[in-house]
Amino acid sequence: MSEYYSRRNLDFLLKEVFDLESLLKLDIYKKHDLDGVKLMLDTAGQLADTEMRPFNEEMDRNDPKFEEGKVKVHPQIRKLLKKFGEGGWISANASEEVGGQQLPIIVSSCAQFIFGAANYSASVYPFLTAGAARLIEEHGSEQLKSTYVPKLYNGSWQGTMAMTEPDAGSSLSDVRTTAEPLDDHGTVYSIQGQKIFISAGDHDAVGNVVHLMLARIKGSPEGTKGLSLFVVPQKRFTEDDQVVMNDVTTTGMYHKMGYKAAPIVHLSFGEKKRCFGYLIGKPNEGLSYMFQMMNEARIGVGLSAASIGSAAYYGSLNYAKERPQGRRPDEKDPNAPQINIIEHADVRRMLFFQKSVVEGSLSLLLQCAHYADMAKAGKEEIKEIYRLTLDLLTPVAKSYPSEMGILSTSAAIQILGGAGYCKDFPIEQYFREMRIHTIHEGTTGIHGIDLLGRKIIMGGGIAFRAFTEEVSKTIKKVKLEVIELSKYGEKLNDALFRLQNITMKLSTIAMKEKKEVFLMDATLYLELFGVVAIGWQWLLQAIPCQIAVNENRGDEFYNSKLHTMRYYFEYELPKTEAIIARLNSSDRLLLEIDSKEIL
Amino acid sequence: MSEYYSRRNLDFLLKEVFDLESLLKLDIYKKHDLDGVKLMLDTAGQLADTEMRPFNEEMDRNDPKFEEGKVKVHPQIRKLLKKFGEGGWISANASEEVGGQQLPIIVSSCAQFIFGAANYSASVYPFLTAGAARLIEEHGSEQLKSTYVPKLYNGSWQGTMAMTEPDAGSSLSDVRTTAEPLDDHGTVYSIQGQKIFISAGDHDAVGNVVHLMLARIKGSPEGTKGLSLFVVPQKRFTEDDQVVMNDVTTTGMYHKMGYKAAPIVHLSFGEKKRCFGYLIGKPNEGLSYMFQMMNEARIGVGLSAASIGSAAYYGSLNYAKERPQGRRPDEKDPNAPQINIIEHADVRRMLFFQKSVVEGSLSLLLQCAHYADMAKAGKEEIKEIYRLTLDLLTPVAKSYPSEMGILSTSAAIQILGGAGYCKDFPIEQYFREMRIHTIHEGTTGIHGIDLLGRKIIMGGGIAFRAFTEEVSKTIKKVKLEVIELSKYGEKLNDALFRLQNITMKLSTIAMKEKKEVFLMDATLYLELFGVVAIGWQWLLQAIPCQIAVNENRGDEFYNSKLHTMRYYFEYELPKTEAIIARLNSSDRLLLEIDSKEIL
Repeated sequence: MSEYYSRRNLDFLLKEVFDLESLLKLDIYKKHDLDGVKLMLDTAGQLADTEMRPFNEEMDRNDPKFEEGKVKVHPQIRKLLKKFGEGGWISANASEEVGGQQLPIIVSSCAQFIFGAANYSASVYPFLTAGAARLIEEHGSEQLKSTYVPKLYNGSWQGTMAMTEPDAGSSLSDVRTTAEPLDDHGTVYSIQGQKIFISAGDHDAVGNVVHLMLARIKGSPEGTKGLSLFVVPQKRFTEDDQVVMNDVTTTGMYHKMGYKAAPIVHLSFGEKKRCFGYLIGKPNEGLSYMFQMMNEARIGVGLSAASIGSAAYYGSLNYAKERPQGRRPDEKDPNAPQINIIEHADVRRMLFFQKSVVEGSLSLLLQCAHYADMAKAGKEEIKEIYRLTLDLLTPVAKSYPSEMGILSTSAAIQILGGAGYCKDFPIEQYFREMRIHTIHEGTTGIHGIDLLGRKIIMGGGIAFRAFTEEVSKTIKKVKLEVIELSKYGEKLNDALFRLQNITMKLSTIAMKEKKEVFLMDATLYLELFGVVAIGWQWLLQAIPCQIAVNENRGDEFYNSKLHTMRYYFEYELPKTEAIIARLNSSDRLLLEIDSKEIL
Repeated sequence: MSEYYSRRNLDFLLKEVFDLESLLKLDIYKKHDLDGVKLMLDTAGQLADTEMRPFNEEMDRNDPKFEEGKVKVHPQIRKLLKKFGEGGWISANASEEVGGQQLPIIVSSCAQFIFGAANYSASVYPFLTAGAARLIEEHGSEQLKSTYVPKLYNGSWQGTMAMTEPDAGSSLSDVRTTAEPLDDHGTVYSIQGQKIFISAGDHDAVGNVVHLMLARIKGSPEGTKGLSLFVVPQKRFTEDDQVVMNDVTTTGMYHKMGYKAAPIVHLSFGEKKRCFGYLIGKPNEGLSYMFQMMNEARIGVGLSAASIGSAAYYGSLNYAKERPQGRRPDEKDPNAPQINIIEHADVRRMLFFQKSVVEGSLSLLLQCAHYADMAKAGKEEIKEIYRLTLDLLTPVAKSYPSEMGILSTSAAIQILGGAGYCKDFPIEQYFREMRIHTIHEGTTGIHGIDLLGRKIIMGGGIAFRAFTEEVSKTIKKVKLEVIELSKYGEKLNDALFRLQNITMKLSTIAMKEKKEVFLMDATLYLELFGVVAIGWQWLLQAIPCQIAVNENRGDEFYNSKLHTMRYYFEYELPKTEAIIARLNSSDRLLLEIDSKEIL
């Protein structure tokens, strides 16, 4: 079994960076302890090693088939979903009351990272189910809960998120699927419409597929304010408990560049007007419920991107350690033995680049998970601030790993050279799979607008202030307690200062000018924010490493972390300068021109 | 037929930027005129439209097959090679004496760009053949010429470049294939060895495959100084003109992520000691001959990258013009009709990014072709300086389009969103095909070392000075004659000044320190050089456009060029700041650490 993630790194982040021990003392998590978590991650690793990893390439080469209106997936998926159900992985974050594990999100995120690194496409099925189940659990009626949640948690049914339509992708306000009441209680509706790009939207590894769907109740307002959330199963129960088909038709399956083992389908609802949907929560509030699932899914996308990047990193690292090619630049003797390519500066640069992206991303994602846990379990008076910081960081934690992951898996290919471009190694598969992440759960452009146009300005900038305080706390800690790192603390402080300045400048534009001027370069702002946020996470990670070195507990792991932090501050953080140069410019090319003059 | 390149842009570059008219007055090109060139490019366009483009996706989906030691390619390849032969495309740059077209390289490069944009994989076959034929024509004996060149030029035989071996990829000095003399004239040798990653190295669309191969004559020195160049055909003629197999065995075919229609094979030579190779030129001088072919191939790789980028650009541009989604940020009415996504600032940014990469790259490549033509046909006293400038720019013109093409095709996917990730559109294919170009004909890392470690310092920096003078000439022209552009001239001047400074600084390091210190960040230096060189090309292109506008001849084409130039200076040129910040740092992380501490 080739290495595809670092368990030591997961343990390091959990214990030495995010102080899991303290978290586990909080009321709702106190049934868990560090030993229990260790065992759980051991189990996750075994599951990944035995049931996921060995099928990674096979599933890529053997796409799901769509025949006679049915989607047939790899037989291992059924086995896997059963194992995920039995192992409690789908209900990991659910409360004990409903049979869940009540596990901190930071811990289940580590397991998800392992699963994604082992076999990304396969890891998507249970992840989607978990999200759907938690949404029903939190906002659904008792009847919906008892009908759907247990079957979802035990892996016999599949959950999905059904939002996108042919004319409503990024623009959710254009959702046209309709819902018409079938009873007087406002619970059962007749659904009609089309949904596209639905992951795991139909397949033969489960007994039923349960769609969490956005639709518009007839008479509701236009735009996102008129969207309601429904449970729309593929098969439903009649009043006398018979199972009948619910008029949900799979009209097509997409053929994708990667991420192939999970079928993405086009669904048609209510062609015969026999499709029932069950309202969740209040009418017209669907988007706010859906956002709970979407926000989790966004963090999930970031985790998936980081996990694929991890597999590519280890693939290329192990190759670089074993592949002899060339000699040192100062070696003049052509008879001298070739050296392994890990000795070449350029290969090292590409390795550090990958490691800085993958482990920096993972750290930010676990930071988000930590905030989510604290917002759930922490003291009442500070919950809100954790929630806000998580909200602010969600677009960053989704987009940085996804965008940079394209480059980091590309660097992995480059290290292998021609071999990296061929199917003998899984690296090219990682590169193909990575490319989906800047698209699903909101494109990078949408997240730029979310960050700058919504999260930065919300509550008069309260979340942004909370974020800068968190970063400043880390810088201060370094300055006072880990003097060896203070040079990097100063660099981060500079970058943070410049981020604050440009944020202020943009906020002024927001007040004075049209929204389109304010948001013109929102994607670049998101990129800038990401580089600074990951710099913060590297400094944060460096603290326990430097302390270990100072206390003579240093080892290769800690040194490698310190080298990567140094790499990041030398090679990656300067990229902020280029972005800031642009953001400071007053040129409004993108708004001033006529579309006819793009040709 | 969907648009995949801009003919107007090719005409613009040929006539308005690189003054083809003057070139055609030079002796060796004077049989051609502008009308003739127009017709030729019309013909190239028709060939691409009818025989290449319609097969692009089909060839991707139906890889060559390797069965019973034979490679079977798409039947259209045979037809295409015949058409290429008949049309004189393979012999385009060959002299009239040998039946060639004696066409300027800048013109044939435009044709190659069209072919690559239509169907990259298919365009590789004739391109490789042309390179091999020209090499034999220039350095081979009369017998080799008469035996091989006509069949190569008419498309009935395939030419290849056979360098890479299992233990000698980037490190050519480790080539182990041997050659043992079979006669006393030193012309025929017995060849034994393995070659891997040989493009079009075996297939059934031709009667013979002719390898131009590097091997070491027994007793020759180690390293690159002991390499000789051989013609090694798959089938050879006996003394009594019988055709016999030449003991060349195809032992495997690679399965690649993209670039699928061209088979890349593993070859074994002389397993039965019956493989004959025919020496080209002098023993031990093989690498210098091969470099002629390699340098052309490197410009060819740049052209291919730019051409794939062009197809992706037009694919995403046309989608953006027709796909309605969302509303302007300041639009509050959800009932307002959706706008086409080309109206969104972020989509425009991604379009300009692509256009700036594709057309900037193409311009630099035609600049190189122009230098190559002048080095061949220009006045004796300045030939050398053109040759040197071409030498200097070759690694840049190969690497910038290849590296940036990964990002530009990625931006094309992003514009299409989920649709871009699916096989219904060819964009995902372009993304996969683009990824080979930073690898073949020398990885980007190798080109960084070539640029900084060889080209910059050669002749005491003469080529670098010539380059900076060329750029300065453009800046001066703008300052004096096209005052509207002087702001951009100043920006380029700043960037050039900083490039000169950092070059000087690195040259000092080269004199004082170990080579490995000097070359540590050569890849970043190459990247920096590329951004400046493309900025130069954008300013150069802007001149005739601004003049046209000033003379009231302005139109959408010229305005679009000016917008893209402005985009480049606003969004791309600032990236130099980040790279320079790193290159100015004295941190030597990449050299100081132990490989065990990368984990």
